Amino acid sequence: MQRSSSRPVQSTSTHDLGIDRADAEPIQDQIARQLRELVLGGRLKPKARLPSTRALSEQLGVARATVVEAYEQLLGEGYLETRLGSGTVVAAQLPDVLLSAGKPRVAATPSSPRLKREPARPFRSGLVDWENFPHDEWGRILGRYWRNPPISLLEHNDAFGWMPLRRAIAAHLFEWRGITCAPEQVIVTSGGPDAFDLIRRAVFNDGDSIWFEDPGYVTARRVFTLAGLNCVAVRIDRDGLLVSEGRKNAKDARGAFVTPARQYPTGVTMPLSRRLELIAWANEAKSIIIEDDYDSEYRYVGKPLPAMMSLDRSGCVIYSGTFSKVFSPIIRMGFIVVPEKMIRKFCEERVAYGAPPSLLVQPALAQFMEQGQFAVHIRRMRRLYASRREALLNYFSNEAKGLFTVDAPPSGLSIMLRFRKAVDDVEIEQKLLKGGIEVQALSQYYASKPEKGLLLSFAGFSEAELLQAAKKLVESLGS
Amino acid sequence: MQRSSSRPVQSTSTHDLGIDRADAEPIQDQIARQLRELVLGGRLKPKARLPSTRALSEQLGVARATVVEAYEQLLGEGYLETRLGSGTVVAAQLPDVLLSAGKPRVAATPSSPRLKREPARPFRSGLVDWENFPHDEWGRILGRYWRNPPISLLEHNDAFGWMPLRRAIAAHLFEWRGITCAPEQVIVTSGGPDAFDLIRRAVFNDGDSIWFEDPGYVTARRVFTLAGLNCVAVRIDRDGLLVSEGRKNAKDARGAFVTPARQYPTGVTMPLSRRLELIAWANEAKSIIIEDDYDSEYRYVGKPLPAMMSLDRSGCVIYSGTFSKVFSPIIRMGFIVVPEKMIRKFCEERVAYGAPPSLLVQPALAQFMEQGQFAVHIRRMRRLYASRREALLNYFSNEAKGLFTVDAPPSGLSIMLRFRKAVDDVEIEQKLLKGGIEVQALSQYYASKPEKGLLLSFAGFSEAELLQAAKKLVESLGS
Repeated sequence: MQRSSSRPVQSTSTHDLGIDRADAEPIQDQIARQLRELVLGGRLKPKARLPSTRALSEQLGVARATVVEAYEQLLGEGYLETRLGSGTVVAAQLPDVLLSAGKPRVAATPSSPRLKREPARPFRSGLVDWENFPHDEWGRILGRYWRNPPISLLEHNDAFGWMPLRRAIAAHLFEWRGITCAPEQVIVTSGGPDAFDLIRRAVFNDGDSIWFEDPGYVTARRVFTLAGLNCVAVRIDRDGLLVSEGRKNAKDARGAFVTPARQYPTGVTMPLSRRLELIAWANEAKSIIIEDDYDSEYRYVGKPLPAMMSLDRSGCVIYSGTFSKVFSPIIRMGFIVVPEKMIRKFCEERVAYGAPPSLLVQPALAQFMEQGQFAVHIRRMRRLYASRREALLNYFSNEAKGLFTVDAPPSGLSIMLRFRKAVDDVEIEQKLLKGGIEVQALSQYYASKPEKGLLLSFAGFSEAELLQAAKKLVESLGS
Repeated sequence: MQRSSSRPVQSTSTHDLGIDRADAEPIQDQIARQLRELVLGGRLKPKARLPSTRALSEQLGVARATVVEAYEQLLGEGYLETRLGSGTVVAAQLPDVLLSAGKPRVAATPSSPRLKREPARPFRSGLVDWENFPHDEWGRILGRYWRNPPISLLEHNDAFGWMPLRRAIAAHLFEWRGITCAPEQVIVTSGGPDAFDLIRRAVFNDGDSIWFEDPGYVTARRVFTLAGLNCVAVRIDRDGLLVSEGRKNAKDARGAFVTPARQYPTGVTMPLSRRLELIAWANEAKSIIIEDDYDSEYRYVGKPLPAMMSLDRSGCVIYSGTFSKVFSPIIRMGFIVVPEKMIRKFCEERVAYGAPPSLLVQPALAQFMEQGQFAVHIRRMRRLYASRREALLNYFSNEAKGLFTVDAPPSGLSIMLRFRKAVDDVEIEQKLLKGGIEVQALSQYYASKPEKGLLLSFAGFSEAELLQAAKKLVESLGS
């Protein structure tokens, strides 16, 4: 009975057990783990008798109590049993599923799908400026709050979110978007998809039809479609969604998803007359309008139209906003404002699913808004983005004559290049990507009959980066 | 044409416009807002002619340019139009919906449903200790990280969460739960409901049957049921879910939702033999087991059984964990571990819905885990909770003889009171609540044929609070 680590393992033996006193793992755990592996690996068969605790403690040079502890652990786990007259044995009822498995699993290194992207290059969308974000103030508010948080947080159970944040959002909407609402109507969400899914559950039924701008916000369309709604593509003109076409195609739709402040992705603004036409339809059809208002705080010329919700007298508009563009995409937070009469239904849904966003962000964000830093930040960013946009437009108007025209709505974080002749915008997108420039082909936003164009987002890049990329883009398109 | 603020408003007049130079609102905005309200209120009718900019500027005593700006704003919004020869008029096409509405909306104060709870009193569930939470360290990590965050965060787009956190979770699971998995298998979630909904979308179809412990975790059952799964109640015995009954009632179910470490709410542990029986069924039926493991780090006697997932050779177990009990419910974060072969499908679902949890918490939590503070915290809390549990059990064993027996599994954050004679536990719950004691009636966790009992959670209260409440409870039940 010699012990050697190079000896092959015997099928019913415990001779290869070893302990390592330098290891952080307690010795009884080392023993239990190794025995477990012998059972799982089939080297200790069911009903096989184990050495007595005395024998094993002598073999390993450890206290008998240590072995007793290891055995008791495995008895508790069901790997071992005690038999009258036989001492400790491997449990008889270990079925095949366990024993046939061979070696214990080792760390898997699957070839997981590509989840990460390359470093951002102009003109990737969804980015905001990073350099000028008030990291210091934000970090200080967060740190200060969480070093000494009120115990009442632990009892917080408001399905709609942290009340001071909801109050701050209502005040912001009044000032910036002309919406008069009570904080009770504001629901904090984990961003767009959470908001859309909540709305879907609260106001729609499976198979309901809903008008969708074409081109439009693909993510929202996907969330609704995957969840069983029938998204009816409705074309847009220079005033946004064609209500007349919606009436023709699906008069009795249960809802309409629109981006009136700045149509996504084309940037056109829906004027008052079209808004009223849409509301009139919603009232006739007893339908719901979802107003997705994602970045209208960034308006460079004149003032934004007040939100459509401010026109709504009948409680048919649900407003959806996000902090991603005006603050930071990192916090993944947004909000919706629902008509008073829908509060109860939304509350039921929120409670049933029980998934309001993390409280960790909400109090700090509320303070940031209450103290006015939020509005200061937006105004600063608006100046910054205005000059980036201006620089880009100037460059193109001087250098890109004949290659394309530029659609530059007076708001938002992107511009659109349009081509006079027929082009394959997806092919151009791919070609530019190889050259280190990221644009979005407009045609990808269409459900049907795509128009061609390139969407360029400028918010996340410095003027120098933008101009360098613009130069490369013009050269590439001109060649 | 005199101006008086007490004069009644004339239907087509602008005489009541006033400005307040002390107000923070710019003067042109004050003018535009009041004109908008006159239109919306019906006091300025469609096609009504407005005063010339010169006349109005004189009337108000402001620069003409200011009135021009206000008019231009309203022209842009579509409230006004310019007519050849008539100057500026109210837009003709304002439809009835807008005009019939009367006064502009005022802040609503709806009677919103009760969303908030009373201050926590023993023995409310879902709480953890607050005093001993490492607020200082946690606040410092958060503040330090966010005062100087890496720009790479902005490009982060991993649908499964922040990789360092996923690595830390995998390491934690190896050490505490015996699970060997790659970080690629770990998906960060916004807590239970998010996790369950993701699992449902990734592995089940509408109408699929799934075994559910009876009594069981009501929230999970509700999420699955609302989403269209058919939850089949399967009774439990002292070893947890009765696999034999599941086979009898719904042999071909597509899944089983179980809490093997500590059955919720009864606290029974599923022994190895039953676990293997369940896995054997899943392999036969090609079904999925969801292992919900919510607080097994808190084990006071002996060591916890390794997670069921550690026994799984065929990739049929999905593990679900949460930070709510072992860390803090405030961060609303959890995770699931999926078999390698399911990674791609889960990734598709996560990308399609696009709602991974906020990045704000993940890097700080990763640091907290990497630096070992997380494990230190759990060990400290385990000692604390052990002594709270002990104090409560001692009190009941001395004082509550004959009134009830106590089920006290050697783990978790609650104990159960059982009654020898038939009682109405919901009635007792209500009676105790009036006396300032919060317990949960066991019968509420049942889908069918309820047993009676009272669930008492002890984690969120000091020994003194617990003993005081225990005394009141014994007195109330004894009277």
